[in-house]
Amino acid sequence: MCGITAYCGKGEALPFLMQGLSKLEYRGYDSAGVTTLENNQLITVKCKGRLENLENKLKNQHLSGHVGIGHTRWATHGVPSNLNSHPHTNQDETIALVHNGIIENYRELKDELLKKGYQFQSDTDSEVVVQLLDSLYDGNLLEATQKVLAQIKGSYALCILSTLEPEHIIVAKKDSPLIIGKTKDGYVGASDIPALLEYTKEVYFLEDYEMAVLSTDHISFYDQHGHPIEKQTTTIPYDLEAAKKDGYDTFMLKEIHEQPHVIAETLRGRINHNHIILDELKDIDFSQFNKIYLVACGTAYHASMCGAHILKKVLDIPVLSEVASEFRYDDPFVDEKTLAIFVSQSGETADTLAALRLAKEKKATTIAIANVLGSTISRDSDYVLYTCAGPEIAVASTKAYTTQLVLLILLAYYIAQQLGKDINKQIIQQLMSIPQHVDTILKDENLFAQYAKMLENQHDAYFIGRNLDYASVLEGALKLKEVSYVHADAYVAGELKHGPIALIENDSVVIAVATQPHIAQKTISNIQETMARGARVILLTTQNMEVKNVQNVYELPDIDPTLQTILVAVPLQLIAYYTACIKGCDVDKPRNLAKSVTVE
Amino acid sequence: MCGITAYCGKGEALPFLMQGLSKLEYRGYDSAGVTTLENNQLITVKCKGRLENLENKLKNQHLSGHVGIGHTRWATHGVPSNLNSHPHTNQDETIALVHNGIIENYRELKDELLKKGYQFQSDTDSEVVVQLLDSLYDGNLLEATQKVLAQIKGSYALCILSTLEPEHIIVAKKDSPLIIGKTKDGYVGASDIPALLEYTKEVYFLEDYEMAVLSTDHISFYDQHGHPIEKQTTTIPYDLEAAKKDGYDTFMLKEIHEQPHVIAETLRGRINHNHIILDELKDIDFSQFNKIYLVACGTAYHASMCGAHILKKVLDIPVLSEVASEFRYDDPFVDEKTLAIFVSQSGETADTLAALRLAKEKKATTIAIANVLGSTISRDSDYVLYTCAGPEIAVASTKAYTTQLVLLILLAYYIAQQLGKDINKQIIQQLMSIPQHVDTILKDENLFAQYAKMLENQHDAYFIGRNLDYASVLEGALKLKEVSYVHADAYVAGELKHGPIALIENDSVVIAVATQPHIAQKTISNIQETMARGARVILLTTQNMEVKNVQNVYELPDIDPTLQTILVAVPLQLIAYYTACIKGCDVDKPRNLAKSVTVE
Repeated sequence: MCGITAYCGKGEALPFLMQGLSKLEYRGYDSAGVTTLENNQLITVKCKGRLENLENKLKNQHLSGHVGIGHTRWATHGVPSNLNSHPHTNQDETIALVHNGIIENYRELKDELLKKGYQFQSDTDSEVVVQLLDSLYDGNLLEATQKVLAQIKGSYALCILSTLEPEHIIVAKKDSPLIIGKTKDGYVGASDIPALLEYTKEVYFLEDYEMAVLSTDHISFYDQHGHPIEKQTTTIPYDLEAAKKDGYDTFMLKEIHEQPHVIAETLRGRINHNHIILDELKDIDFSQFNKIYLVACGTAYHASMCGAHILKKVLDIPVLSEVASEFRYDDPFVDEKTLAIFVSQSGETADTLAALRLAKEKKATTIAIANVLGSTISRDSDYVLYTCAGPEIAVASTKAYTTQLVLLILLAYYIAQQLGKDINKQIIQQLMSIPQHVDTILKDENLFAQYAKMLENQHDAYFIGRNLDYASVLEGALKLKEVSYVHADAYVAGELKHGPIALIENDSVVIAVATQPHIAQKTISNIQETMARGARVILLTTQNMEVKNVQNVYELPDIDPTLQTILVAVPLQLIAYYTACIKGCDVDKPRNLAKSVTVE
Repeated sequence: MCGITAYCGKGEALPFLMQGLSKLEYRGYDSAGVTTLENNQLITVKCKGRLENLENKLKNQHLSGHVGIGHTRWATHGVPSNLNSHPHTNQDETIALVHNGIIENYRELKDELLKKGYQFQSDTDSEVVVQLLDSLYDGNLLEATQKVLAQIKGSYALCILSTLEPEHIIVAKKDSPLIIGKTKDGYVGASDIPALLEYTKEVYFLEDYEMAVLSTDHISFYDQHGHPIEKQTTTIPYDLEAAKKDGYDTFMLKEIHEQPHVIAETLRGRINHNHIILDELKDIDFSQFNKIYLVACGTAYHASMCGAHILKKVLDIPVLSEVASEFRYDDPFVDEKTLAIFVSQSGETADTLAALRLAKEKKATTIAIANVLGSTISRDSDYVLYTCAGPEIAVASTKAYTTQLVLLILLAYYIAQQLGKDINKQIIQQLMSIPQHVDTILKDENLFAQYAKMLENQHDAYFIGRNLDYASVLEGALKLKEVSYVHADAYVAGELKHGPIALIENDSVVIAVATQPHIAQKTISNIQETMARGARVILLTTQNMEVKNVQNVYELPDIDPTLQTILVAVPLQLIAYYTACIKGCDVDKPRNLAKSVTVE
């Protein structure tokens, strides 16, 4: 996830580009850069770190060009560095571009370009695009762009600027956002509406595979075959503050809704005809391990619990999930035959980092699963896989959790594949349908808001589940207590009768998850026991599950049970969210909590 | 734990013996029996099962003797059966006795008697006493008894009846209770006051090592050397219902106070000069195991968590504790190299039983830790260790939990000893001092009642701890929610900042346990974080721990950290108990709960 901006107009490009980047910084803050056209020369200024570093660097430059592009980066390929920052240019410095997205086949394209004598300055997939553009340019930048797009696989929003055609900017998109604004003195583009709002509320929404050519006084749109098309402007009805949240009331709700997209981004390029591609791990000989640890805190720990269940089932070796703050002080059984996986959104969680260092001391092979590229945990581990969730602003984690689950499931089947085990091809295929299923569930948002009303006057909520569903309810309960301050706790459904059921009284709310066929009916029996004590129940289960006398039953889309753990997260997030709203809580910044826990 | 009765008077013995046994049935109900003297012949009627079986059997007898003894059994040696039932007689049937307690050196004594030609009908330690008495009888039953007592090691309350001296009953006690009552037409004896109250409120309390000779119109007391001593009667100030609870308001409080005694009983005969004796397990080759599972539900699961920590630390092999309802459906990694330990007070817990059967199918070696002898789990497992907690009447488990901990710790060091590992002799010695330390803590009961007042108006309570202390707070929270319905939950202290701390507000009550030196200060830091949000804290920690600004700090007696897990249970039980009292809850029978969970 990155943010890009583009300006082509009568005024100076830089002020628009910079204010736009500052509005987009929530999309990434690993590095930033701009390119403007100055006397038919491309001048690029870029640097690592947050936008203010770039601002400081620009103080010594005097960029006054009328055409320019900008970028703020959330790294996915290549660590944050000056060289890996955008914009990227070809070797002649005649073409510059900014890119948001992931080019899946960049290695193949890069190999071909290297053979042709192209040299690369960065490790990024984006530089490949500009070099490819150079190689295909034949006097018409739009045609060259069209040819490039035909060759690249993956997601992109692109803004291209060239001294060869200095009067315009070419933009294109697929699976990454790009919005074009019509201002009083030209046309502008950006990844998101907030970047435009100071200049205009009149916008065009570019669709996948469409291209546009922006000039000072004109704009043309084209389909993927280069045929001109017509587009109408839309007037944005809301202000800047709302726009940062993409029109949602809160970042949490926005991030919940981003899940179909970020899950697709996390899957992108990872699956090819039932074959899982995790090239980051290709040097690991998985046959050397006799056990696996997953170590994390909070929400990432719940993802790890799910991961442990699935890894154990798929690999048939012992897999242990541990809370990092316990693992680090408990002299764990870790040695050179141990694979240790550390999961952290921020990649900076203090206990998880300490646990990672302990595992390395004990000679384990370590893999980080992180969302922030270049974070300490991702740097310190032997190998790293990145969730492509983009910056998560709300303190309560949502999209980071589901993308962690996606990566952990990919990892489980990848290891099985590398070990030559028979893997369940249906699950691999169904993984690709997760974004669409999440989308379907999000369409039932109102229903979950209704369920939340059951908690309006409740001080407590009791979550129950078994096996994989127990990890899901732990996360559901955590989400609810984090944002709504309802005292929510999760219990192994089979343990209810050994104590917790004493808490159930008339009108208590019990939220149950029963998605695993071999134990779902057991959990449903436990629900009945709570109902016999007066509890009102919300049951999240699968289609065609036999359920009697339960009023609020939500049937999740039909998919392999292993993958239900991803889907069921979404209703639980929405129930927590709407409960917090009903109770008037500050959803994005819950009391007492911080986003990244960098102390013990 | 058993119950015994004795009658010597002008009336018929049987009515007293039977009503007494019915009052004592709470002390055991595996078998029951009586012996009366009929025309200078000892007539014994006894049978397996509850007292009503004995009543039915007695309908066909006409026992009208004026001297007799009775027994209701809670089996500790030998399964419940007719032959193992008391009273036991010598071969000539001239001496009969009932015994409550455990004779530690019964095997050695039995071997000697076998060499002398004695034959035994039962597997019990008690039969050894009557045969030994026979072998030492030389015309004076009191002197013979005195000699027997000099030879036996262990605990006993004994009532002895003989055709050789038909006019009286000899009684003696050490470490097991025996109370003598003076009635209008004779003297009676019983294990506990309720058995006497229908006949008299005038009682003598027999002390350890004392003996008494009961006649119809006279009683004499003797010290262990046979010297006559004087004793005064005491008038019991309370009625039958209170007496069943030993004067306590509830069974739960009574059982909490029984802990010094039942822990001592569980330890009895298990330690000899730093050597641990668990002969029940002597056939197991522990070197065959590469991992250990502990499986249980509820409170027993918390004991298992502690056990797993300690076993892992002592044995340095992987040890996993699992909730039985999860274990049985999760295809656990169990094979012939697995030692699987199943912990259950009742020995009938459905999920634990199913888990045991699964482990046996998978060829594990299985050990049960149970309180009820002859229970299904103890019968079905390959080996069994019994806690000597006696019947636990209150639904919320207290003395069963601490005795489970004692056995699990003994087991850990026993396995280490059998494997030839160096074991920490100090811990073994300190184990013997646990009853005394528990006694010391019980003396602070009023303080814990004060702490409970902090919860008087609370709906919630938050327990935190790390490592072994985490298992302790899970149990503390379970106890509190079971009996007081306070929504109590336990969190790994290091996880607070990852979510649960959002629940903390002004006046919240946090109960922290910090007894493990390597992580205690970390937990104390986490306390400070909750105090910064307005929480009121109760901290249970060790002596000389540096703690700043915490108002309610209780220092546990000085002992090895591994053993603190037993001690800290007691304050947590008392806090739960007094909170329930303040809130007016039915402590012994909490809503929605049953004592023994024999369904899934």
